[in-house]
Parts: sequence; structure tokens; C-alpha cells
Amino acid sequence: MKRPIGIFDSGVGGLTVFKAIRNQFPQEDIVYFGDTARVPYGPKSPKTIIDYSIQNARFLLQQNIKILVVACNTSSAVAIPALEEITDIPIIGVIQPGAEQSVLTTRNKRIGVIGTEGTVRSNAYSIAIKQLEPKAEVFSTPCPLFVPLAEEGWQDHSSAHLIAQEYLSFFTNLDIDTLVLGCTHYPLLKKTIQTAIGEEVRLVDSAEAITMYLQRYLPDDGNESVGNSCFYVSDSEEKFYQIAKRILDKEPAFLKTVRLYESWFIGK
Amino acid sequence: MKRPIGIFDSGVGGLTVFKAIRNQFPQEDIVYFGDTARVPYGPKSPKTIIDYSIQNARFLLQQNIKILVVACNTSSAVAIPALEEITDIPIIGVIQPGAEQSVLTTRNKRIGVIGTEGTVRSNAYSIAIKQLEPKAEVFSTPCPLFVPLAEEGWQDHSSAHLIAQEYLSFFTNLDIDTLVLGCTHYPLLKKTIQTAIGEEVRLVDSAEAITMYLQRYLPDDGNESVGNSCFYVSDSEEKFYQIAKRILDKEPAFLKTVRLYESWFIGK
Repeated sequence: MKRPIGIFDSGVGGLTVFKAIRNQFPQEDIVYFGDTARVPYGPKSPKTIIDYSIQNARFLLQQNIKILVVACNTSSAVAIPALEEITDIPIIGVIQPGAEQSVLTTRNKRIGVIGTEGTVRSNAYSIAIKQLEPKAEVFSTPCPLFVPLAEEGWQDHSSAHLIAQEYLSFFTNLDIDTLVLGCTHYPLLKKTIQTAIGEEVRLVDSAEAITMYLQRYLPDDGNESVGNSCFYVSDSEEKFYQIAKRILDKEPAFLKTVRLYESWFIGK
Repeated sequence: MKRPIGIFDSGVGGLTVFKAIRNQFPQEDIVYFGDTARVPYGPKSPKTIIDYSIQNARFLLQQNIKILVVACNTSSAVAIPALEEITDIPIIGVIQPGAEQSVLTTRNKRIGVIGTEGTVRSNAYSIAIKQLEPKAEVFSTPCPLFVPLAEEGWQDHSSAHLIAQEYLSFFTNLDIDTLVLGCTHYPLLKKTIQTAIGEEVRLVDSAEAITMYLQRYLPDDGNESVGNSCFYVSDSEEKFYQIAKRILDKEPAFLKTVRLYESWFIGK
């Protein structure tokens, strides 16, 4: 029996990853889970991000997925080892493909990384890049306002340019020739980021890098599928539906809310 | 036995409400819960906000509180009726005090309201204000980027001024003389908002309005307490600790993480 590819993200940002995978693998079934009720993950603690990632993965594993794609950079940065403990299927984050792509792109081996607080604090890109290219120098800075700017649709507003200038001034005099967009939302601000960082710096988008990477790990289980796409979200469907339609250029046909059964307890 | 006042908020913003209550009622014990693991509530659906509010209230009810203060405007706007179904103790949101204060403040009966998407969509301020003053005209607009700007500490950055100008241009030619800051984060941007809206418009801060209001409903159960303050958060303590120290001008002595027991299920 053909089994689906599972993708999860903290919200809608991972749809850029979904879209790239959908285009590259039209025959595969894909189940996407967006944790829109608890978005964003970026400013939250590693413990919370790991808990959420495990819950999301467990939901997708119930859908009998054959491979798990962690589209969220923050989850990819801190939760992969914990996820590998709960399943034997292959797990692919966005950090490794982005790191590989940046090493292939750079000429002077000076690479910048922007991401959420969680991703930058984890140092995950720097570690992955240096494993591939020990001589690389990696400079990372968080850009927390880029996510709400993208969600507000203000990627071209003059305030977005000011904010990008402020964040990216971190790279002044560091002589980077490559900048990794280490958050699935950031490609939506690509133009503004390119203007602020300068046209000579090449941008690496992990959503694009991941499809090549996925090819290596994708289990071959035949071709009898028609390429179904299912979307699950933890908040209501309406808002996701509108944004998904815009990002995917078509309506998400199957879209359903998944709710958590929850009760508090005191403790770690 | 003396019972505590319970306060919950989606995160740290409600600490402005906590501080006002703490100052006004030094003898009262207060238990504060900040849902830092699921913040923000503003952009999320009413169903999700109601679910979260009920879980937060249930946790505080376990602490034997005598009155529940809903410091979060978004929860106050949509969840109060649902909360009243699960308990008989008095429940106070920030909408009603803010509405009363705005009616006392306005002279021309033209009142502006800014808040999250959830608060503005609910129309809660407009309904509350018109019940008090049927001749009032109320104009509301959401300002979603104010919360991340305040959390980033960029309330005086030039981008904050540009963003405030853009949002508040909604009120141009509407001739308001009073503006309700309908989100606990917004007082942190008070100066920037005042500059953008003009010095002649008076700002109403519900954190200030709520203490007078609380006096009316606070059960009198003696004076044997020493005024303990306990803080619970759903994400890790570190980040809350830093922000709390800044807002409260002192260290939160008792601070503990509360975690959710969670599992997904499909359905509404």
C-alpha cells in the first residue's frame, strides 16, 4: 500500500516547503499538519518546541506516513533527535538541506544565517555547515519581526525595509557572500531582504533545497497513488484556507481541524 | 481562610494589570497565570481562544481563587460567557472597565479602539460602550504588529513610528477625542501611539481602569494575608522572569512552569 509523505510546520510557513515537494513529486500522497493554534514556535523554549514537535509527529505517524519532513526551522533545529526516538521512518529537517545548499553556493566560505530566536540560539546551521566545510565562517542573527510582517502581508511596506536594514546591519563588514533564509516565512520577504543585504549576496531558500534532498531518502513504494494532498490544522480552517489559497495558487481541497485534548499539570 | 485573586493572560502583557492590582491591593494574595507556550491569542479563532481560556481558568480555580481577572483583551472579548458557565465566582474582564473609562473620558462621544484581530472582530468594546452611552460612536481597527514590536522592545524604533502612523491613519477625519488601548501590550507603546494619533486624543489604558472596577466585586474575606504573589507560566520560566523583572521593577519570587498533558484528536 502506498503511504503518504508527512510534513509538519508551526503554521502556514511550511506551505512553501509543501509546494516545492508537491511540484517535484506529483504522484506522492502528502499529509500536511500546521500547528496554527500554537504558532509561533520561534520565541518559545526548546522543551516546549520538542513537546509540540513530538505531538505533531505522533499525529502524522497515525496517518501511516513513510517519511517525516519537518518544515519548521525551529523544530528542525532542536527537535530532530527527540523525534528519531519515537519512530524508525526517515526524518528530514530543513537545516541540513539549507546548510548543504549554502556550502554549494558560497565562494568565500563566509555564510550568514537569519532565523528565529530558537533557531539561532540552537546554532544548528553553524554546526551543520561546519561539518560539511570546516573552513566556513558562519554568522547568525535572529529576525523575530519578519514572521509577523510576513503574516500581516507587509513585506513591501516601508517599515519592513527599515526593520530589514536594522536586522541585517549585523552583517555589515562581515563580508558574507551567501545568506541562508533560515525560517519558512522569510522567502515571502525575499525582495526586501535582498535589497537590504545587497544584490551581491546570494540568498539560500531551504524550501527549494529540500526537494533534492528528499529524493535521496524517499522510500520507493510503487506508483499507484494519484497524489492526494490532505491538510490538518490545529486552529480553525478559515484563516489557513485563505493563506493556503494564496501560497499554493489553488484551494486546499481537503482541510480539517484537529484539536488537542488538554489538561494542565504542574511540573517540568 | 483567605483566598487569592486569580489573573490570567496569554503571556506577559497582563503583568501591567497584575502590577496595578498589586499596588492597589497590597494585602491580597494573587496567583498569575501566563500562557506563554501558546501566546499570542489575538490572531487565533474564537473557538481556540475559548478553549485556552477555559483551561487557564480551570488551572486557577484549582488554586482556590475567589475572583477571576481576565487580563487578556482577546479572551475578555470572546470567552467571558463560556467562563461563567464553569464557575460561580465573579469574573472580571478588561473590556468593561476600559469601556466605562472611555465613556467617562470622551467629550464628543467619538471613541476609537485599537486591539488584536480577535478583539476587534468580536466588537466587544463597541457593544460595551454603546450600552453605557447609546449616543457614542465607536471606531475600531486591529494593530497586529504592535504586540511583536513591544515584545522585541522596539517601541521607540523608527519602524514602530511608521507602523503606528499606518495603523492609526484609520482614524484620520473620524474626529475621535479618546482612544482605548484594547490590548495589554499597547501601554508599552504609549508614547509612540500618542505621537501618531496626536496629543489632543486621550488614551485609555484598561490596566489602570480595572483596579477601580475590581474594588466593587472583590469579596471581603478578612485581612490576615501578607500579599503573596505566585506566577505560573506554560513555557519555560527564564524569558518570563526577565520580562517580569523589567515590568514589575522587581524579581518574581515564586515562578513555576505548568505543562499541558496533550493528545490530538480530529474533530471540532
